[in-house]
Amino acid sequence: MVDNALSPHGGKIVERVVPTPAEKLRGLTQVPIRGPQARECLGIAYGFFSPLEGFLTAADVDSVVKNMTLASGYVWSIPLVFDLSEGQIKEMGIKEGGKLLLTYQDQPFATLDVEEIFSYDKELMAKNVYGTTDPKHPGVKRTQAYQDKFVGGKVTIVNPPVINPPFDGFWFPPKAQRELFAQRGWKKVVAHQTRNVPHAGHEWLMKGAWFAANADAILVNPVIGEKRPGDYIDEAILLSHDILRKAGYFREDIHTTSLLLWDMRYAGPREAVFHAIVRKNLGCTHHMFGRDHAGVGTYYDTYAAHRIFNELPDLGIYPVKTLEWWYCPVCAGIAYEEQCAHKQEAQRFSGSLIRSIIEDGVKPPRLIFRPEVFDLVMESAEKYGHGSPFVNEAYLKRPDPVMTIPAMQL
Amino acid sequence: MVDNALSPHGGKIVERVVPTPAEKLRGLTQVPIRGPQARECLGIAYGFFSPLEGFLTAADVDSVVKNMTLASGYVWSIPLVFDLSEGQIKEMGIKEGGKLLLTYQDQPFATLDVEEIFSYDKELMAKNVYGTTDPKHPGVKRTQAYQDKFVGGKVTIVNPPVINPPFDGFWFPPKAQRELFAQRGWKKVVAHQTRNVPHAGHEWLMKGAWFAANADAILVNPVIGEKRPGDYIDEAILLSHDILRKAGYFREDIHTTSLLLWDMRYAGPREAVFHAIVRKNLGCTHHMFGRDHAGVGTYYDTYAAHRIFNELPDLGIYPVKTLEWWYCPVCAGIAYEEQCAHKQEAQRFSGSLIRSIIEDGVKPPRLIFRPEVFDLVMESAEKYGHGSPFVNEAYLKRPDPVMTIPAMQL
Repeated sequence: MVDNALSPHGGKIVERVVPTPAEKLRGLTQVPIRGPQARECLGIAYGFFSPLEGFLTAADVDSVVKNMTLASGYVWSIPLVFDLSEGQIKEMGIKEGGKLLLTYQDQPFATLDVEEIFSYDKELMAKNVYGTTDPKHPGVKRTQAYQDKFVGGKVTIVNPPVINPPFDGFWFPPKAQRELFAQRGWKKVVAHQTRNVPHAGHEWLMKGAWFAANADAILVNPVIGEKRPGDYIDEAILLSHDILRKAGYFREDIHTTSLLLWDMRYAGPREAVFHAIVRKNLGCTHHMFGRDHAGVGTYYDTYAAHRIFNELPDLGIYPVKTLEWWYCPVCAGIAYEEQCAHKQEAQRFSGSLIRSIIEDGVKPPRLIFRPEVFDLVMESAEKYGHGSPFVNEAYLKRPDPVMTIPAMQL
Repeated sequence: MVDNALSPHGGKIVERVVPTPAEKLRGLTQVPIRGPQARECLGIAYGFFSPLEGFLTAADVDSVVKNMTLASGYVWSIPLVFDLSEGQIKEMGIKEGGKLLLTYQDQPFATLDVEEIFSYDKELMAKNVYGTTDPKHPGVKRTQAYQDKFVGGKVTIVNPPVINPPFDGFWFPPKAQRELFAQRGWKKVVAHQTRNVPHAGHEWLMKGAWFAANADAILVNPVIGEKRPGDYIDEAILLSHDILRKAGYFREDIHTTSLLLWDMRYAGPREAVFHAIVRKNLGCTHHMFGRDHAGVGTYYDTYAAHRIFNELPDLGIYPVKTLEWWYCPVCAGIAYEEQCAHKQEAQRFSGSLIRSIIEDGVKPPRLIFRPEVFDLVMESAEKYGHGSPFVNEAYLKRPDPVMTIPAMQL
């Protein structure tokens, strides 16, 4: 039996960032990668995804798909694979035992050891990871879009990216994040996963979870990655959470914000497990899970992400399972579903409610939506969002705003 | 080493209620007792004060005073003694090995086995229990007022009292309280000690503690006993906490109210320990402690009652230590001192603020003070308080409203 409670996951933080001179990279087969792959390389090499050291080999993929563990026995819920077409492999002469130079933004970026070239049943992968093979599910669609071959092997960042403003202030890989927690004297930290600009319901979800975890602090750790039209823009999400603290809705000594580079899979319960493991690697002891965590459409029960932890061994990070916070006119404030009996009178927060508030451009009551957050969202729209706080075509087309790979002449 | 974590304290609930026919009581030396003593007899005989089976003997008193434990090693913080004057003892011919019939309301009530007659240094008792010998401290005053002799020995209720409305609905001795918890399926219950009519700050103190304890439910357990002028009347305290649930500010499935017959000693940290043990006997797993718990004047540090638990063995009931909840105009609601950074803007709840609200008779905002609580306090004033929700002379002079001892002809 593997002790999944070891912290970090697997017992140590993976670090595979080795700035490497150009002469050592010459002659390697170059493979250009896309943004999602670049983000995965960073996640692996900076230890967010410990104990992964690279893209999964066949035995790991099969075990993750079927057992939700790596072949070694550590719990792991989402297969991280590096796909290529059979044509590309043949054309580029990629062989097991070789090494690839992954390029991004036309620059050398990382190496990938070709330990294994394999294929895997993508239908089975989708079915087990997402519980569905419906191509309308964005995770299923992503799986089905994979090329037919996977290359498993270790990843090393050879040309570390520069993280651009405003993201740079939130870039805390596991070692740095853990150092920050240690400096602050925080022993118990509860993580908040988000893709939202926070309203007062989110704020209380965090405040309640802080109590439930008897936590020293809250880590707000928005997922930054591939966007869909209508999503909040990343900059608004990150900065608006941070302003909650700066404006005093959270004390400085109990709150911090950092980012996670990750393309949402919308895998519901399996993604909840993934989030837990990543935040454990960041040094958190607890992770909050609200309704519909990492879900999409109606593929998962509202609280499927709560139940999955009952079936898992001790992960060394504890789920704080929360129900709904709502506005209750009888209580005259934000109230919690399990405490407040005014279910009939309660007014539920909804994404579309807050969206319409923001679209109207009229400041809502501060009890519902903090004016500082509102102002910041509007500023972010101008500064980063091509006039909108919601992702539009122009936002989708911009080059990777988070990282810039330094120029390197091979 | 004694295992103080056993639940109930000492391992079993004491039950010493034995309805006894008059003929078996005839011939016993009769000693009339006062209300405080009657309440202590009930506390002992119904198991609230387990493992006590009676009034303390000399070795127990000495150990409680000096070590905060009974002679057996169980933590115990307040000496419960039965005092008589040397003259009374002589006059009534009371001797060790004898048995007294304690009468209350001129009726046979309980027996007291005279195991030991002793005296004890009252200055030392006051100094160690209250941390002061200042006679202005009400607990010290009570200690100094004791007669010079103490009778230690087992207490048995022989003529159980009738508990009168509205108190009867809140009379849950440990066995009944534990049965109620079991019926409801409550495994973790956090106790709230109070002598107050609740404002929204109290409500959130309870709601926050419920989170912190990851509790199934809250037991509101007001102390009912000797009053001082200006205190809230007992009926208003009990009924107003209960109305919080009935009006939906707490869900039915997470809240209940029962009473504790006890004359406050205002012993600060030592009384906090006593409260914890009694609520453990009632079946609670957690006990909330706010600022100035069971204190009076400036005899104790604001959080002395938090610190004392650090020095004690595991009591089997866990302190939930809470700081202040306040009204924050920036947050536009009730906020918690450790979370909200608007310390400058915060408006603190104070006893005198709420008192003035009630005295004005004008309904305050429901965010601060629930209208249902306000109405109930006003009703209680009329029905029980001689026109006032605060204890006045007429209220102090009424006969024991809580219990009536059935007539019994000896």
